[in-house]
Amino acid sequence: MKVTVPATSANLGPGFDTLGIAVGIKNQVIIKPSKFHSVSLKGEGANNPILKDNNMFLSIFNDFYNNLSTKKQFFRFEFINEIPLSRGLGSSSAVIVSAIASAYAIEGLALSKEKLLNLALAYESHPDNITPAVMGGFTVATVQDNEVLHIKKEMPKHLVCVVVIPNRPISTQLSRKTLPYKYSKEDAIFNLSRSSLLTAAFFSENWELLKTASQDRFHQYYRMKQMPELFEVQKIALKNGALMSTLSGSGSTLFSVSYKQESKHLETVLREKFPHFKVFTTPFDNNGVKIEY
Amino acid sequence: MKVTVPATSANLGPGFDTLGIAVGIKNQVIIKPSKFHSVSLKGEGANNPILKDNNMFLSIFNDFYNNLSTKKQFFRFEFINEIPLSRGLGSSSAVIVSAIASAYAIEGLALSKEKLLNLALAYESHPDNITPAVMGGFTVATVQDNEVLHIKKEMPKHLVCVVVIPNRPISTQLSRKTLPYKYSKEDAIFNLSRSSLLTAAFFSENWELLKTASQDRFHQYYRMKQMPELFEVQKIALKNGALMSTLSGSGSTLFSVSYKQESKHLETVLREKFPHFKVFTTPFDNNGVKIEY
Repeated sequence: MKVTVPATSANLGPGFDTLGIAVGIKNQVIIKPSKFHSVSLKGEGANNPILKDNNMFLSIFNDFYNNLSTKKQFFRFEFINEIPLSRGLGSSSAVIVSAIASAYAIEGLALSKEKLLNLALAYESHPDNITPAVMGGFTVATVQDNEVLHIKKEMPKHLVCVVVIPNRPISTQLSRKTLPYKYSKEDAIFNLSRSSLLTAAFFSENWELLKTASQDRFHQYYRMKQMPELFEVQKIALKNGALMSTLSGSGSTLFSVSYKQESKHLETVLREKFPHFKVFTTPFDNNGVKIEY
Repeated sequence: MKVTVPATSANLGPGFDTLGIAVGIKNQVIIKPSKFHSVSLKGEGANNPILKDNNMFLSIFNDFYNNLSTKKQFFRFEFINEIPLSRGLGSSSAVIVSAIASAYAIEGLALSKEKLLNLALAYESHPDNITPAVMGGFTVATVQDNEVLHIKKEMPKHLVCVVVIPNRPISTQLSRKTLPYKYSKEDAIFNLSRSSLLTAAFFSENWELLKTASQDRFHQYYRMKQMPELFEVQKIALKNGALMSTLSGSGSTLFSVSYKQESKHLETVLREKFPHFKVFTTPFDNNGVKIEY
């Protein structure tokens, strides 16, 4: 059995804890019944022995599997991870979603995407990564009474995303501490109006408005200050064809949306200017989590 | 020549200074060349002699007409106003939009809706009433560098709005003073996520989400406290089929969206419970300002 979950970019500028989008790199796990417990790990995180044996996936998987199953069964877990760790591309959400989905699937139990999403909420209180991880596409989400309320819009094939992944993380904890506890009415309305306009731009496919609608006053400045090169990445991306360019989650990845036909140029410029960062282009993912037997 | 502008409801709950919608009651002005200046006024405001001679319409109309025309021409102005004054249904925005549109039209000059909207911005700094007044439909708008950026969604015919117009206004000035100057991060995100979700719900026609997505923490509570009966109107509307029920602009009107087939019941209940308030049902307007020669 194989479970695949896409990487996700959250916030998307003004849409703090609300907007998210699924992109075309993914984590996979193949699970097979086995005589004894074993784990193999390829790709991102493979050179970290602590992750290999005691990772979040196994902990969440066991929480659910032990509840759902009466058998005592061992498994071989093969992880193939493309989502980089601690770079703001939703690796934790991918792990949470794949672990819960796997525990149900291995028992042959049906689990709706809606229920999966709400189970994932217990492990990740913000809905902006888990929602696109489960549903795919561009998503708008909020939480009400421990339930995720969300709406999805599929992304068209003529748009792609170009990501710039720095060679180091921004500390999420440090990063959260640098954010204000209060916002002036002016800034609150600034983000509220742009997050709403950005939502309307995605739903109506009015791509030319993304640039202005993706402006933010809540978090990007405070976080990017910790890695000032990111301001340069953003500026160069917007000058070279990016429709929008925003900090991915809490960073350190910078996420840009581009027309497919202009993405080669954008990717080339960014790669030349930032040779120590990883730069690549990938389509959007419209499916979210996928289970194959 | 006749210019018609619809009433508008702004904010729509969380969408402070951002979301707006055009409804089916309207102000009309018929303008004819005349040997001397004269004004007639029917409908809302007709019993107020100060409005008749020295109103905002004539002041703005003259600003533009004197600039655009080299002739010295008098006119007869016949106003037929359905939009109540000072009740949060965009009467000022209707006046601003119709005055500017009239000055151009009477001179036979073309004026795009886009330019009209940006000219109106000089008289009304928030875009949430002027945008639907000009464009019609449900609109999302923000201001960047003295320009309104906006996206419109047409409303379907099976939805209507039910308005409850109290017999007195909430003072806008007093009302603005009662609002906080700062918002906690939690409240800022609460409104931002709901305004975004409400936008997505309108664009994707996911009407069942309107109720939760229209919750607000920025302004409604502070304003409705000045007329506590409004909490009762809102509660009863939501219990009797309203998909959402929000303070219209800064009040005192309460605006509800309903399926057409359920609106009769909703209107009847509201009229019975609040016999001293004006209650009626009207379709949405998808055209905005209209000029007829």
